[in-house]
Amino acid sequence: MRLGRQSGSKLIALLLLVSTGGLFGQTDDTTDICAVLDGQVQAWNEGDIGGFMQGYWKSDSLLFTSGGSIQRGWRATLEKYRKSYDTKSKMGILKFSDLEVSLLSPRSAWVFGRWKLEREPDHPKGVFTLIFKKFSHGWKIVHDHTSSSR
Amino acid sequence: MRLGRQSGSKLIALLLLVSTGGLFGQTDDTTDICAVLDGQVQAWNEGDIGGFMQGYWKSDSLLFTSGGSIQRGWRATLEKYRKSYDTKSKMGILKFSDLEVSLLSPRSAWVFGRWKLEREPDHPKGVFTLIFKKFSHGWKIVHDHTSSSR
Repeated sequence: MRLGRQSGSKLIALLLLVSTGGLFGQTDDTTDICAVLDGQVQAWNEGDIGGFMQGYWKSDSLLFTSGGSIQRGWRATLEKYRKSYDTKSKMGILKFSDLEVSLLSPRSAWVFGRWKLEREPDHPKGVFTLIFKKFSHGWKIVHDHTSSSR
Repeated sequence: MRLGRQSGSKLIALLLLVSTGGLFGQTDDTTDICAVLDGQVQAWNEGDIGGFMQGYWKSDSLLFTSGGSIQRGWRATLEKYRKSYDTKSKMGILKFSDLEVSLLSPRSAWVFGRWKLEREPDHPKGVFTLIFKKFSHGWKIVHDHTSSSR
């Protein structure tokens, strides 16, 4: 009976550990991923495209697509951003909203969200799908599919 | 010495098993995912939207977006397709190309590819990002972000 109680207690302790471990793990990963996106928005709104690009995987295999055009590689994506947003007024104020983070494995996730640029004379907006991978130096975007609302 | 040889042989055999297992696993998964997409194209080109929809996760959590509009759930996505493509001529002939399948874990993957519709009078085309998950009944699309080239 005593053995039974001990086993029961151990089982409950183990379940709690696994449960909270899982929950904390998920919360941490989601928090870390959102922090990457927050960092991007902050850098963008300071006119810092280089800082914004820190959220992306610094690799020739980064795959970025927006409006039907495709960039392969971190450098090509940086150049595309620099060319499309060569003034602070074109960059406007970036906002992300309605972020949905879905973990696929301990080292991969996808994120869906809305973006908008507050600037004159237009206010472009749309949605994005991001694939994130967790590297030794943290979560990075390995693929970005951004599209605009018509 | 004999023990050493045996251990060595066992190690090599084990490495081969893990290696080929891994390779076969990846090839099988990629093949299975491509088969889902082939099935979708075939169904579409037979005017069978219900068959096309079999590639998607039959869940209220399916997330589909195209041209800035968002559908949540398998049923809503089916209705959107039925409304947008209510005649065989609007459906045209669908082609997928340049498929890139990237496994994220044994049960998740993302796919990037190009789509086009051959029909009169227009020939719309663009790219898509798909998130696949492996269920007991096979690989299904849980998220589809489709966009058109401008």
